[in-house]
Order: sequence, then structure tokens, then C-alpha cells
Amino acid sequence: MRDNCGVFGIHSSKGCAESIERGIFHLQHRGQVYAGLSVFNGQEIISEVGNGLVKEVFPARDLGNWEGNSGIGHVSLMDPQPHLVDSKIGKFVLAFSGNLINGPELREKLKSQRESFSTSYDVEVIARLIGKGKDYISGIQGMFQECRGGYSLVLLTDNGEVYAARDPYGFRPLILAKNIDGCAVASESPALEEIGMEVVRDVRPGEIVRIEKNGFSVVRESQPERAAYCAFEWAYIARLDSVIEGIPVKRARNNLGGELAQGDEVEADIVAPIPMSGIGHAQGYHRVSGVPYDDVFLYNRYSDRSYTPLDQTVRDIIANEKLSVIKESIKGKKIIIIDDSIVRGTQMRKQVFRLKKAGANEIHVRVASPPLKAPCLYGISTTSYEELAAVNHSTEEIRKMIGADTLRFNTLEGFIRAIGLPSERLCSSCWTGEYPV
Amino acid sequence: MRDNCGVFGIHSSKGCAESIERGIFHLQHRGQVYAGLSVFNGQEIISEVGNGLVKEVFPARDLGNWEGNSGIGHVSLMDPQPHLVDSKIGKFVLAFSGNLINGPELREKLKSQRESFSTSYDVEVIARLIGKGKDYISGIQGMFQECRGGYSLVLLTDNGEVYAARDPYGFRPLILAKNIDGCAVASESPALEEIGMEVVRDVRPGEIVRIEKNGFSVVRESQPERAAYCAFEWAYIARLDSVIEGIPVKRARNNLGGELAQGDEVEADIVAPIPMSGIGHAQGYHRVSGVPYDDVFLYNRYSDRSYTPLDQTVRDIIANEKLSVIKESIKGKKIIIIDDSIVRGTQMRKQVFRLKKAGANEIHVRVASPPLKAPCLYGISTTSYEELAAVNHSTEEIRKMIGADTLRFNTLEGFIRAIGLPSERLCSSCWTGEYPV
Amino acid sequence: MRDNCGVFGIHSSKGCAESIERGIFHLQHRGQVYAGLSVFNGQEIISEVGNGLVKEVFPARDLGNWEGNSGIGHVSLMDPQPHLVDSKIGKFVLAFSGNLINGPELREKLKSQRESFSTSYDVEVIARLIGKGKDYISGIQGMFQECRGGYSLVLLTDNGEVYAARDPYGFRPLILAKNIDGCAVASESPALEEIGMEVVRDVRPGEIVRIEKNGFSVVRESQPERAAYCAFEWAYIARLDSVIEGIPVKRARNNLGGELAQGDEVEADIVAPIPMSGIGHAQGYHRVSGVPYDDVFLYNRYSDRSYTPLDQTVRDIIANEKLSVIKESIKGKKIIIIDDSIVRGTQMRKQVFRLKKAGANEIHVRVASPPLKAPCLYGISTTSYEELAAVNHSTEEIRKMIGADTLRFNTLEGFIRAIGLPSERLCSSCWTGEYPV
Amino acid sequence: MRDNCGVFGIHSSKGCAESIERGIFHLQHRGQVYAGLSVFNGQEIISEVGNGLVKEVFPARDLGNWEGNSGIGHVSLMDPQPHLVDSKIGKFVLAFSGNLINGPELREKLKSQRESFSTSYDVEVIARLIGKGKDYISGIQGMFQECRGGYSLVLLTDNGEVYAARDPYGFRPLILAKNIDGCAVASESPALEEIGMEVVRDVRPGEIVRIEKNGFSVVRESQPERAAYCAFEWAYIARLDSVIEGIPVKRARNNLGGELAQGDEVEADIVAPIPMSGIGHAQGYHRVSGVPYDDVFLYNRYSDRSYTPLDQTVRDIIANEKLSVIKESIKGKKIIIIDDSIVRGTQMRKQVFRLKKAGANEIHVRVASPPLKAPCLYGISTTSYEELAAVNHSTEEIRKMIGADTLRFNTLEGFIRAIGLPSERLCSSCWTGEYPV
Repeated sequence: MRDNCGVFGIHSSKGCAESIERGIFHLQHRGQVYAGLSVFNGQEIISEVGNGLVKEVFPARDLGNWEGNSGIGHVSLMDPQPHLVDSKIGKFVLAFSGNLINGPELREKLKSQRESFSTSYDVEVIARLIGKGKDYISGIQGMFQECRGGYSLVLLTDNGEVYAARDPYGFRPLILAKNIDGCAVASESPALEEIGMEVVRDVRPGEIVRIEKNGFSVVRESQPERAAYCAFEWAYIARLDSVIEGIPVKRARNNLGGELAQGDEVEADIVAPIPMSGIGHAQGYHRVSGVPYDDVFLYNRYSDRSYTPLDQTVRDIIANEKLSVIKESIKGKKIIIIDDSIVRGTQMRKQVFRLKKAGANEIHVRVASPPLKAPCLYGISTTSYEELAAVNHSTEEIRKMIGADTLRFNTLEGFIRAIGLPSERLCSSCWTGEYPV
Repeated sequence: MRDNCGVFGIHSSKGCAESIERGIFHLQHRGQVYAGLSVFNGQEIISEVGNGLVKEVFPARDLGNWEGNSGIGHVSLMDPQPHLVDSKIGKFVLAFSGNLINGPELREKLKSQRESFSTSYDVEVIARLIGKGKDYISGIQGMFQECRGGYSLVLLTDNGEVYAARDPYGFRPLILAKNIDGCAVASESPALEEIGMEVVRDVRPGEIVRIEKNGFSVVRESQPERAAYCAFEWAYIARLDSVIEGIPVKRARNNLGGELAQGDEVEADIVAPIPMSGIGHAQGYHRVSGVPYDDVFLYNRYSDRSYTPLDQTVRDIIANEKLSVIKESIKGKKIIIIDDSIVRGTQMRKQVFRLKKAGANEIHVRVASPPLKAPCLYGISTTSYEELAAVNHSTEEIRKMIGADTLRFNTLEGFIRAIGLPSERLCSSCWTGEYPV
Repeated sequence: MRDNCGVFGIHSSKGCAESIERGIFHLQHRGQVYAGLSVFNGQEIISEVGNGLVKEVFPARDLGNWEGNSGIGHVSLMDPQPHLVDSKIGKFVLAFSGNLINGPELREKLKSQRESFSTSYDVEVIARLIGKGKDYISGIQGMFQECRGGYSLVLLTDNGEVYAARDPYGFRPLILAKNIDGCAVASESPALEEIGMEVVRDVRPGEIVRIEKNGFSVVRESQPERAAYCAFEWAYIARLDSVIEGIPVKRARNNLGGELAQGDEVEADIVAPIPMSGIGHAQGYHRVSGVPYDDVFLYNRYSDRSYTPLDQTVRDIIANEKLSVIKESIKGKKIIIIDDSIVRGTQMRKQVFRLKKAGANEIHVRVASPPLKAPCLYGISTTSYEELAAVNHSTEEIRKMIGADTLRFNTLEGFIRAIGLPSERLCSSCWTGEYPV
Repeated sequence: MRDNCGVFGIHSSKGCAESIERGIFHLQHRGQVYAGLSVFNGQEIISEVGNGLVKEVFPARDLGNWEGNSGIGHVSLMDPQPHLVDSKIGKFVLAFSGNLINGPELREKLKSQRESFSTSYDVEVIARLIGKGKDYISGIQGMFQECRGGYSLVLLTDNGEVYAARDPYGFRPLILAKNIDGCAVASESPALEEIGMEVVRDVRPGEIVRIEKNGFSVVRESQPERAAYCAFEWAYIARLDSVIEGIPVKRARNNLGGELAQGDEVEADIVAPIPMSGIGHAQGYHRVSGVPYDDVFLYNRYSDRSYTPLDQTVRDIIANEKLSVIKESIKGKKIIIIDDSIVRGTQMRKQVFRLKKAGANEIHVRVASPPLKAPCLYGISTTSYEELAAVNHSTEEIRKMIGADTLRFNTLEGFIRAIGLPSERLCSSCWTGEYPV
């Protein structure tokens, strides 16, 4: 359904390969198809990129012979990274998280100048633009000026330097952390905390930072542009234990559930989430409403996350095996079901149908996000415009379609209030269709 | 820490290989190291047994060329099954779930009669004894008389018959189901319901059933012996959506949490489970006590279940990656933490420590099972007697050891009341040290 | 077409796993489907058996952590070995090379005594019989009395002893060797010489030897029975650098070619082998006749040996890719083509056809073995009786069938003279239909 | 030690994937580390490139679902190809065989123009230069002007066209063939003949050909430059059944052996090759001298070719396992040993030592090529200048070093006479140090 990559970079006096493996393992929810790791071993960059989960690509967990103090890592759904580049300013490897709006245009522009490409991936476009600089910093800055879109990136040079940068609007998160042995950067804070690092702050929009053994050097200050942090990170993408721009995802989701409970007069026996995405929201609803919390679905930990496969048939089989209904919780009950969002409505319709079939008396669907009105341009692979349920349908029409007894979405105001940042620092284009860039 | 195998058998006019694969997938929590599948293809038995999860051993999910209408499947932690047997009564394959108390004795007895074995597994002992019958039914009956222990088994013959049997005390569960295409049997009900079958009843202790296209033939009646259903199935082993002996696991776990809440005067901000084992119990506690329910741990779905690896070092790494603390839920809170049981206490100590480090004000541990006093002899791989925390320590000593502010276990009476079966139909030897056999 | 397994056993003060791997690598031509290795590590027997070539099953060539001073190895076409046995006399692993004539009978006999089997392989039958002894020596002797057929075996016990034995007629070869570090036994001498051992002698028919660090103990003397060494070992099966019963295979094949040249009045430009099986014979013909030696086929080293796959279609594809014609050697030439034998004649017909198509003027086929008249019962997987070309056809009929201008076989007398052993010490049942056992 | 890639291209009305697989299988001796295959399926180019032998990368030999009528393939030691290119003139895939002398220079030149690269391979440099053309033909012509070195290439476009081209001097071979279904091109003729094609002619130096369903279009005529066909193809690299520039490799090697025999007065019992490289030469020597031909080494078909691994230790182990001595041929004999060339002399020294140890009376080494005096710049990975035995040592010194009784090389005149082309059409820089480009 939607996805995002994860990036990681580190400089540590204690060696870095195992920390990168642990780091990208804790970013696994951001991409499950490719995993990659690059280390500067004192002489040169060594890389391995493979198809599969982190634990499959790096199975032995014995990366001890990957000696070296700096490196980067990546997980993704779509393309193998880190990407190798041989340029005038040096050899380097690059990994990014996000999306270019004008990737195809930039590619055509370079092709019209008689350059050609060795892959069909945007990372190669970004790499080419960086390679046109007079050094890494000017290269990234030049790339900032050409590329429109949301992207956080990490870069490892052939003398072991690690750079991290976030696009001028800051769509995708990027967090800095350190401990006594060194410094690191990652798409989410748990990837840093789980390796024993302490979060320092988020990289700022448009900022370029060099990750060094003893700290960070800001090599390009953030410009005073409008920030546009992706609101969906708090609502869905990020881990429940992440903290982005100082705001815990758990708190945001609890607030989103609380907003839904405010003034909701439905009577219900229990409130329950669609696992795993609806859990934080449902617990917030439970706290504010006082409606008891229960599970009506059993999440199967031997399955894989529903949105991963690109093929719909495989997605359906996995969706079925992932969630089993717990009849004992359902029979004769009035149930409030909570999820983060409704995209096409087909998943929710299926689950409402299964609950009713298992004997539920009433199903009241509550959705943490406002109705989705526009596709994302900054790194989440949503469906196309026409497929979004809320584009051509009223809430009442969607309610009928999914078979619920009642249906409520959060308002955009409530949604933004729940996150707790001013709307002018957030990207809410999925709901408004107004794109910051 | 503890485990149990899963068995599955089916006879269906629509072909059976995919149903077996789906069935054992839904028994995956009972064993993650080996997966096996045998089908009678009209001429002969074909088998495949491999190392790994069901989705790894049978990855294509395209078992279409495994034609045949009857077959069996197996998942386990310890040994590859189904096991092939070539005997006077025919060639057959056998899979079982459980444990023999006198397996080594029986092996020595047969060896002293100048037989020898081709594996070191108990399934071969059981197979040898069955093969000594004059037919399958008398063979299984003869085996019943020799073998002491808990075991549910499925057997596929070289003319496509499927037999299912449960030991005379019925330690391990075994459920019958059917639909319009045929009949099936499995260790747990969801493995049957998820393939579109309807549960009929549990196989009775000491009963032998032939699974046929149009129904079940009871080929050996259950003898009126004392039943001894493993109580730990409801408390921990089985899936939350299982129903055993007519009693939903969800209801039993909710009741167990409710029992803990009765008269508990601790004041707390939230009640939270150790995922995934404590969830049903915690929700029951929440319902009876009115204490709000919340998550303090994030369960990592890309990790594997903690008890799987036999090696402690690997277990520790995986234990750490499996549960992350959600600081936002914890800071400054008084928290009731609930799990199904305490074995050695080391896991609980680690989690209490992490919660306190994350800023919890108070941690009150509540445990759904009474203190474990004796190892299991019937199929759960517990630790040895000496390692059980409750063998040499009072509850107060365990509380100090794990660092909790308060600690309460259920009483045996409350535990049995929660499950809802008379104590003389349950095995509670883990808590009493009194073994039915 | 035909095959044979290979066995290896060793006791060495320097560790043994790498020597076993090297040993069975040099026996690879005797079986390419399974490879297995067992070592006694001081406490217990550890084993690994896999599907594939030795270099595939043991790829790292780093067996350094397989510590232990004694062990056995095996390669085969048909079944995984060494086979584990748990018996009254101890745990042991067993591997053999050859064939039981009465394997199915013995299996039925044991089954009628209410024993059953865990595999369908003869090695389990042999193992059961050995396990019925009061110790290993009496067990092997008892097995000698029950089993009819040709078999050389190696056995490793759970206290690290290695036994080697050869059936009472000595159908299959088995050679002893030693160096300063220990002693070893193998199906062929190069497996011993290539690991730096010096050949001592062949194990005698019916002899049982214990392989020890400082030498061999003959624990059961050879009985004065008729020896029946398989004559095909010298003609085809064994490596060209093997020495069996003191007679070099190279010398035997040269002599066989020489016999063919004696009195052969055909006029030819060159003599050429069917690679690799006809090489030694063709060089012998060249030496005696004075006809120049040349290659008309290019052997493709990236292909696999023709007889390996059991499926005929795959065999055909591989047969085609294995030998390419070298037109430059062929055009306008009169060519003598030499191979070790003709089984069904289809291979030879195909090659004669290809040579004629490539422009050969005349093709004269010379065959080192007499016409095959009967299937082998002692370990070579020949085709069935009816398929043998020479059973129903005269030499002239075969000549027409294969499209050759002339065709000559060696006589049985010439064949035996070439090998150089008295006929009463050889098995020549393939040509005579008279079976020693 | 030395190597060369292999390329293949085809256009066929019968589908092409299996023909490409068969074609590159028959080029396997030119590169064993990577294998790749690209097909135009009517809509787009699909590619698979993997690590391993052709039979390993494309194991099923079931390429039936790779539908499409045109495609290319590649085998190599050093880099994965075909290489994907996205350029102004279209998407295409490119594979080449050979070496660029000025690859690093061209790379630096493009980098100084602010282009950057995504790999470190020369194929990307060639691809970039082709992509700068206004169409494929002008692109390849432009590349001809920039690139110095030896290279034969095949190229598949995103509308299914296949181009083949050979550098202006024609260092590396490239052969055209056709049958009723279409046309093809390959590095060697057997790759074409083995798939049922008939050789038409060699691609000419500097020529560009489009491979079409009904024939070849010469889209750029060969310019009247000096040809410089690599003489080592006839002496060593190509298969024994190849025909290059109309001259069979078998004839050339026989002539080379014949040249060595001319006037050679050494008395010997036998002449024998170092397998497989010396076989054709030794048979030529045998024919001219009348010395009987024999084998003294057994080539192990389960080993891999000696020069493949880049690591010397692994090379040594494999070298030892590849050739076993046949003592019976050696003891007490005067032996002429023939190989194609001596590089460092270490291999030959080892083999002479083994033969003497096995009892040879005299060893006379004869070498088909003149002493190697300079490294190759056009696609054979020879050792560095300093390591070549003949750079700093006289023939007598080399004889002592390798321990032979006598040693003779062919003269350059004899060598060229044996091949049968005028010296001004050959590259003999390895022996003269005079490089055509």
C-alpha cells in the first residue's frame, strides 16, 4: 500500500558493521525487499546489498570481519542501495529514503546532455547531481537546487567520511544520536537507541551534517524555508516507539484516538484496533472514552506485513493469514474498530465482513486520519488518485461500502492538533491536495 | 523455553497438499525448526521434510502438483517428521506432538531384543511399536499400552488412510473438523477453521479415529480413564483464537487476568502485557479492575519468538530485539505488568529493569499461572527442576530477584476456576509435582 | 548406465575431516548424487550428508572445526550415507559400496519378525544385521552369512573405532594404506595416494580389518573361498590411475586395446577414443598397431558424466553437450573408434552418426569388453536383460544397428588375459551369465 | 592466469532464450565466474545476471517462459554483464569480450566533464561512449574512435535489435552464423554449431553488423586497417573444435606440435600433453615425430579449470586435485611433455617434479608458443611483466628452474607459420612486446 525506505549512517571508534546491521534491522518496517550495508575499511569502501530481510541478507550476525569505523546502511521495498558512484570528487556510496517528483525530468535532462544511466533508479540521478559538485558539500547543495521531492540521505566517501542530509522541506525524518564511541544518524530514533545511542536532535530541513567520531559538523546550515514534515509518519509509518521532531509517535497516536473519542456518542462494548497499525489510536480512544479495550484480531507473527508484496494476489493471501478473528471477543458485541486510515476501503470492508460473520452485533469504524484525497509525491507509495475511496465518495457512501454501522474520520484540524505541530510545519497534502513543493 | 509440536491430518475430495500447508502454517507457533508434509498420491506416499518455517520449506505456495486426497503435516522444534516406516502391516508415515516419559526405556528394551534404530528420536520408538501390531488399529493400541507420556498423533498409510489418536490421558489437544469436501484433524482449532472447516469435537483421550472423506470412524473408543488435559495450553501454548475441549483460550486467559484483579488493591495508572504471551491475561485484568490498558513494549514482528533457539546466546540477542520499550507510555507511571508465568525469572527481571530505566515509577508484576514447581513430562520442554525460580524461592524472594514493587501469582484454585474444567480432568503437575501417569 | 558407490575410512593423529573430504573427492566418479562424512570427535559421532558433489556439499573446504581422529566418508548415486544406527552394541555409522541380491528378502524376513524399517535402503538392512551381533566383529560376520551380493563397507563406532570389510567374494575393491600419521582404507588407491598415503595391500575377500592409528588389525581372516573380483573395475569403473589387486588399471586398459589390435587388419588413418572411457584402450591399440592416435571428440569439462542422471531425457541433453566433434580431425578420414563396452548401442550409434555426418570416410568400432550378455547383481546399475544389445543380436546385427563399417569386440579369453588374473579369481558374469553367488 | 570473456547474440523466429543459454554454455571456458542473459520480450528487455557457471545460474534449463525473438548472452571471469544502459538513443544492454587499454583514461576524462559512474567496470565506459551517439551505429563508431584495445561486443536495444561489432584491429574473435530460423553471432564457432547454426564468416575488424531474422546487415563497413588477430586464441584460449578466420584451432595446434617435432633429435618413449591445454600440440608432435602418444596425467573432471580463482592458495589446491599422475605410464620412461606456453614456470616445475618423483627417467619439455616477453593489453589477464619467466631468464635458465632434462620453445617464425596467417594480420605482442595499438 505505502512505504518508505530507511537509512542509517555511523562513525564509531568501536567498529561499525554490527551497529549498522542492528540499526537497519530496527528500520525493517520501512522496507522489506532489499537490505544493504557499506563500510569504509580503512582502505576502501566494501558493500553488500541483497534481496530479503536484514536477517536473511546478513544471516550470520557475524559481521566481525567487516572491520572499519564508518559506514552506512539501507532497507527498501523498491531498489538495491547503497548505490556506488565513481566521480570526479571521489568514489562514494549513497542511500536515500523518499521520492523525487522530478526524477524522470532530471534524468531526461541529463540524457539530453548525452549522459547515460546504468540503472533506472532515482538514486542514480541524485548521485549524478552530487558528483557534479566541486566537493561533497557543494555537490549535495547543487542537488538540493535541482531535485524536488522528499528525501533523507546518507553518503559514505572513499576516505571514510559520512554525510547526512535532509531535503529543504524535511519531508522524511532523520535523527542524530551519539554515545561515547561515536555518532550516528537514522530514519528513526529506535534504530539509534537500540544500539545504545542517545538521541541529540533531528537533522533540520536542508541541513547537511558530517557524522564524525567525536560529534557532528554542520557543514551546511538549514535555510529558513517552510518545513513540511510528513504527518503520516506519526499516524502510520514510524514505529510506535519513535520520536520525531521531539514528538513521540505513541503520544500522537493516543491523541489521534482521543480526538476521535471526543464527542463520540456511540455506545459500544469494546474498542479494538486493526493490528498493528490501529493499536496506538485505539488505546487513545479507550483512555478518553472509557470504553474497555480488547483484541478481536490475532496478529500472526509468522506472516509478513500486508503492504509488502507488489502483486495483489500474494497480498490477498498474506492479508488473510495475517489476521485471524477471535470469535470469543466478538459474538454479540457492539465493537468500535480503529485504524490509521482508509485508502481504497477494500481491506476495511473485508475485516468488517469477517467480524459480522463471527457474530458481532454492531461495527463502528473510527479512522485516525481524515479522508485521503490525493496521492503522496514525497516517498510513500500510495495508490493512484482514482483508487482513493474518499476522492469520489462521501463518508456515508464509504460507510455503506465497507458495511459498517457508523463511520467517522478525524477532521484535519483535529488531526493536526493531535500531532501537536503547527500546520505550516507539516505536509498534509494527502488530505488537502496542496503540495508544499 | 517450552514448546510443543503441531500435527495435522486430512482427507479431502478437493486435494489436500495446500490445505496441509495452510494448516501447519497456522500451527507454526508450536514449532519453528522443522516442517514436514506427506501426501498419498493414489500410488504411494510422497514426503518432504525440511529445516525452517513452513513458508521457507514450502515457499512457492504452489503445491498444485502434489496431487492426492489424503495426507498429514507436522511442525516441530526438535526433530524432522513425518517419519517413514516400512513394516509388516505396510509402509506408513507418522507424526506426533508430545513427549514419551519412557522413550529411552522402550528403546533399550527393543535394543536388548536385538532390534536397532536409525534415528535417535522417540517417533521411531512409537513407529516400531505400532509396526508390531497385526494392523494399524491393534498397532496403535499396543503402543498405548507400552508408552507412557503425552502424545497426539497422525498416521498416513500406503493406501491413503489417515488415523488420528490421542494418548489415554489426553495431555495434548487434538481437534476434529469437517466441511463439504472432507474431514481433518489438527492440534488446534484455528488450523481447521482457517482452511474453511467447521470444528466437530475434540478427539477423546485414548480414542483412535480414522479420518475419511465423508466423516470420522471411531475405530477404538475412548476408555473411561482419568483425563489430564494440559492446563498450560489455555494459559500459554495455544493460540488466542483456539478452542480446546469447548473452552475458548481467549475466555480462559481473560478469566485468569480477572482472577488476578479480584481483590488486588494495588493502585496503578495502566495495566500492560508482556507481548504476546500476556495479552489475553492483561485484557482480563483490565476489564475486571477498570485500570486502563496500554502497551509499554513494542513487539518486533521481524524477530522470532523468544523460546525457539536452543542456544542461550542467540536467545538473548533475539529477546532484546523482540521487545522495545515505549518510553512515552512508561515515564512517571505506576504500571501493572502481566505475563502467563515465571520460569527462571531472568526474562521478567530484564523487562522490569528496562521499564524502571525508562522511567517507570512502580512496577507491579502479576502472573497468570501459580508458581512453577516441577518440570513437564508430557511434551513441553521446560527447564530442569533446579532452575525453576519457585522451587527454592518464596514469592517475596522472587519479587526481590526480579526487582518488582509487588508480585502476585494466581492460586491453583483460581487458576483452575478460570479455565473452567474440574481439576481432575486437567494436568497441573507443573504446579503440584503430582504426575497423572 | 552403471555405477558404484565409493567408501573411505581413516584413523589419523593429525585429524581426519579434511582427509576424508579429499578422499571422497577423489572417489567422486563412483557416485555424484550424495556425499557424506562422519567423524568421531572424542565424545560422539558427528555426521553431515547432503545432495550434490563433494565440492558442493562440503564447499568451504574448511572442515577445520570437525575435530577428531577417526571417521568415514561416502559418495553415491542412490542413497544418503553414512547411515546412523543405534543398537545394543552401540551407536555407529555405516557406509557401503555394492549391492545386495537378497536385500528385499532379508527385509521381508525381518519385517515378518515384527521389526520395521525407517528407510527403504539396503544399508539399513545391513545395519540391522550387524546390530544383532554380540559385538561389531561378530555382527559383521553374522551379516556375511545372511547377505548375498557384493559389498565393501566402512563402519565408525561411538568410541571412534573404524572397521572395514569386504564381502566373502570380494566383488568390490577396497584398499589399505598408511603413512606416518595413521592408516586409511578406500574403494580406490588414488583416494589414498592423493592424501599422502602409501598403499599397503587390498583388503581380502571376507576379511574384516580394524583401522587403527598405528596399523591394521585383521580381526577376521579371509576364508579360502573363491574370489570374484569385478572385471569391469579394470575395464571401466575405476580411475585410470587406480591399482586393484596389484594390477594397474592403465596397464589393463592398454592391454585390452592391444588385444584388439592383435591381428586387426583394418586400415585406418587414426585411432581415437570415446572420451573419457575409451582413452586407455585406444592408447593401447595405438601402441600395438602403430596407427596414429588422435582426438575426434572434444570432452566438455563443464558438463557432467553421462550416466549420472536417472532420467533419460536429461541424460540425452547432457550426452549431447558433453562431446563435441572436431571436424578437422574427421573429414575424409578412416577412423578406428574405441570404447570400453556397448550396452544398448544407442550411444555408440549416435556417435558413429555424428562422425559420419562430420565427413568421416570409414568408422571402425572396437570394443574392449566382450558382448554384454547379463545384468550385474553386485553393484553396477546396468540396464535390464532385454535392453542389452548383445542378448538378442549378433555382432553383425549390432554393427548394422550402430552404423559402423566394421565392429569387433574382445573375446572373453583376450579380455581376461589382458587383465592378467586367472579367470577363477574374477567375476565375469556380465559376459557369461554365470554368477559366482 | 589468463582469460577472456565470451559473447553471444541472436535473432530467431523460434524464440531465443534456450539458444542463448546453450550458446554461452559452449563458451564457458572463456569465463566461469559470471553468466548473464538478456532477451527482448516484445515490450522490453528482461535480464538475469548471476554468479556461477551457466548451468548454475540458469539451472532448470527451462527458459521457456523467457519469450522473445532476440537477445544476447555473456560469460566472464571479472564482471557481471550484460550491462543495462538508459541513454538518449534508448535503453539497451551491452556485453563485450576483451580489454580497453585506455579505459581508466577515458573514465577520468568523462569524470573531468562532471559525469560519474555507477560501476568500476570498463563496460560502463564503453556504454557511455555509445550512448553519446545520435543513434546506435554512430554511437559505436564514436566509441571506436575513443577506445584503444581489443573488444568484441553485442548490444540489444529496447526495440529488439541486436548489433555486433569488433574493434578496428579485430583482436578478439567474433563469428556469424545462420539457419532457417534466424541468425546469430558468438565469440567462437562451436557455440553456433552446437545450436544447429551454420557458420557464415567472421565479423571483420571494425565492422558493425545488425543481426536480423533473415540475415545480417553490415551497417558499418570494415575499414582497411591492419588486422591484429590474437594468436593466442589458436594456441590456447579457443576450444579445440573452434574455427577462427577460417583456420581450425585443431589444425593450428597440430601444426604447432609438428613445428616442435621438426628437427627435434631427442629420443623418447612417449609424448604426452599437459591436459587439457597441451593435447592438440602433443598430437601434432606425435604425428610428425612418430613418437608414441600416451597420457601421464589423469584430468579430474570434477575439478575446475586452474586459472579461474583469483586467489593463489585456492588455485594451488585446485591445481593439485585437477591432475593426477598415472605411475604406470611414467616409471622408467623417457617422456616428452608438451604444453601451449610457459608463463611463470611454476606450474611446469611442479608437474616435472611430480613426474620425476613418479619414476620418469627423463623429462623433455616442449612448448608450443615462443617465450612470453610482454603482458597482453587486449583482453587476456596475464601476470605482470616481472613475473614472466622469459623476461629475465634464458631458455637454459628456465630449463634448470623447471627441472627438465631438455626444453625447447617454438620460434616466432615457426609459430606464425603453424597458424598459417601472415604475421601482419596477427597480434604477437606477447612475444615481441610490439603492440599494434
